[in-house]
Amino acid sequence: MRLNDLINQTSEWVKGTGPESEIVMSSRIRFARNLENIPFSHWADSGQKKKVLSIIKSVLNKIDYLRNSIFLEMSNLSTVDRQFLVERHLISPELAAGSDSKAVVISDKEIFSCMINEEDHLRIQVIRSGFNLEEALRLIERLDSSLETNLRFAYNARWGYLTACPTNVGTGMRASVMLHLPALVMTRQINKVLQTISKLNLAVRGLYGEGTEASGNFFQISNQVTLGYSEKDIVDNITRVIRQVIDYEKKARSSLVTNKEIELEDKIWRAYGTLSNARTISSKEAIELLSLVRLGVNVRILESVDIETINKLFILIQPAHLQKLEDKTLDPRRRDFKRAELIRDKLKA
Amino acid sequence: MRLNDLINQTSEWVKGTGPESEIVMSSRIRFARNLENIPFSHWADSGQKKKVLSIIKSVLNKIDYLRNSIFLEMSNLSTVDRQFLVERHLISPELAAGSDSKAVVISDKEIFSCMINEEDHLRIQVIRSGFNLEEALRLIERLDSSLETNLRFAYNARWGYLTACPTNVGTGMRASVMLHLPALVMTRQINKVLQTISKLNLAVRGLYGEGTEASGNFFQISNQVTLGYSEKDIVDNITRVIRQVIDYEKKARSSLVTNKEIELEDKIWRAYGTLSNARTISSKEAIELLSLVRLGVNVRILESVDIETINKLFILIQPAHLQKLEDKTLDPRRRDFKRAELIRDKLKA
Repeated sequence: MRLNDLINQTSEWVKGTGPESEIVMSSRIRFARNLENIPFSHWADSGQKKKVLSIIKSVLNKIDYLRNSIFLEMSNLSTVDRQFLVERHLISPELAAGSDSKAVVISDKEIFSCMINEEDHLRIQVIRSGFNLEEALRLIERLDSSLETNLRFAYNARWGYLTACPTNVGTGMRASVMLHLPALVMTRQINKVLQTISKLNLAVRGLYGEGTEASGNFFQISNQVTLGYSEKDIVDNITRVIRQVIDYEKKARSSLVTNKEIELEDKIWRAYGTLSNARTISSKEAIELLSLVRLGVNVRILESVDIETINKLFILIQPAHLQKLEDKTLDPRRRDFKRAELIRDKLKA
Repeated sequence: MRLNDLINQTSEWVKGTGPESEIVMSSRIRFARNLENIPFSHWADSGQKKKVLSIIKSVLNKIDYLRNSIFLEMSNLSTVDRQFLVERHLISPELAAGSDSKAVVISDKEIFSCMINEEDHLRIQVIRSGFNLEEALRLIERLDSSLETNLRFAYNARWGYLTACPTNVGTGMRASVMLHLPALVMTRQINKVLQTISKLNLAVRGLYGEGTEASGNFFQISNQVTLGYSEKDIVDNITRVIRQVIDYEKKARSSLVTNKEIELEDKIWRAYGTLSNARTISSKEAIELLSLVRLGVNVRILESVDIETINKLFILIQPAHLQKLEDKTLDPRRRDFKRAELIRDKLKA
């Protein structure tokens, strides 16, 4: 497979097939790992980073279930291609920004992605559709074991895995869940819920992780602390909290449907009407309206639209995706025009 | 015919068949007349008003082309029925507000309406589709002559017809044209145009005449002065000015289509999308969006909608019309809901 094949493929986690996928878009786990006896990426010189890349690449090449993977070095990619990978949640903005021996390996169906020479030498990630951290943990532990048979990771018996940033020391793990919480936002309960989550040592972020704001009523909830807990502890803890949030969102949805039926239907149908008729639309407005349509599909107000189409649109309407689809650079005005056209086409189909 | 038959009938002037009907909704002429030797309505006592009503009614009854008319006394009508007639432009709010021997005679297809005991004893009105003051004048003069063979109107050789308000003395005529000027509004030329019109001794009003504000980009332009001019002079003068305004609007439309095609298409399609999907909508919002859709049909952006449907909707979405259609009283919330439903149905058909 090659990078350009990704544009015509739907990542597994976008299909909306996983557990609780009416509320949970995706579950993601990443492990941060570093090779023994080589400085962390930020301190490593060019030769050391090249060595890291070559070692890791050759080990990944040997893993049979990564056989159909795509290997991409940042230095070979255009700005649009890098942004495209960020938009698909396959690499971090930090990896996209650099070039020096930074690379990514993306497995078939985009289930695994392995960033090389990001903040840590290796960051492996698994994303699954819906609320499925257990499955994500099972898959990533399998990959981690495969790697450990061939690599010696920086590890300390007392602290666990050593990482560039102290917050990752221990398991080197971040488990995060992308939640769609439009009803909690509409009923103005969201702030209370987010405050509670923060008190439980969990972080709340926007669509693209650290430093991004919530948009489209999507909230990414992840563990803050990794030191002193096992991988299973972390997953169990976040799972317990997320179950609660899912329950709150379900209650808020059914209260909206019961008490404000016309207002809710009106909001959702208007969003659908605008999306299926607009001739130019910004990314921000499109995300907000798609969020309402997503809710509409999930509460059975919009029966004719399927959830995969909506989930896919959140990805496809982004700037780099639009440019890859058109196979040329588009200025923002032209992107707004193409975005509107794409949405109309997909909603009509 | 009876009042309740009107709800299923489309007034001739709403059909959008007249000259320049892409810009001119309708042309209307009314004559104010008073019976000789009876005080004007505001000074007449109850017995005198009754007499006025009975005289005029019997004369109107004799006119053959008014044979299928509806005769309605305000005192027999519910508030909703009166408002319904105002919404159809068949009676004035002043007539609707009173009861004492106030009545209206409405001809087949709503071409003529004759208000009895409004400010003047008799106000006859003709409305035609599009820009057609000449035809309106021909029809109203024919009716006026028919009436004058059987009635003696208060008339003074020097001043002309005598009327309750001095501004109507002379011909007793008001000629008005309802213009749809969305492109002049969008291109911010409307104020300049309206100022020029005012300087030419013409009045600019909103959808429902005196004291109403412009909405939906509709502007009603009418003569201010009647004294010292013949009916033909007045019509010629206003016709000349309106031709100019039509020309400005046409230029503004073609400039919008040429220079801001996507923005214009976007506005129009979004309006259409909202109207065909909303589940609740206020009268104000509906009029604004219908105005955009009307423009869209006329500049061939919206090909699947016909102009008669849109023209009809401006009438049907009004509060009393909605209540007549449902045959029951509706509170504002319920009306907003029914309005949205009606618009969706009509646009789908």
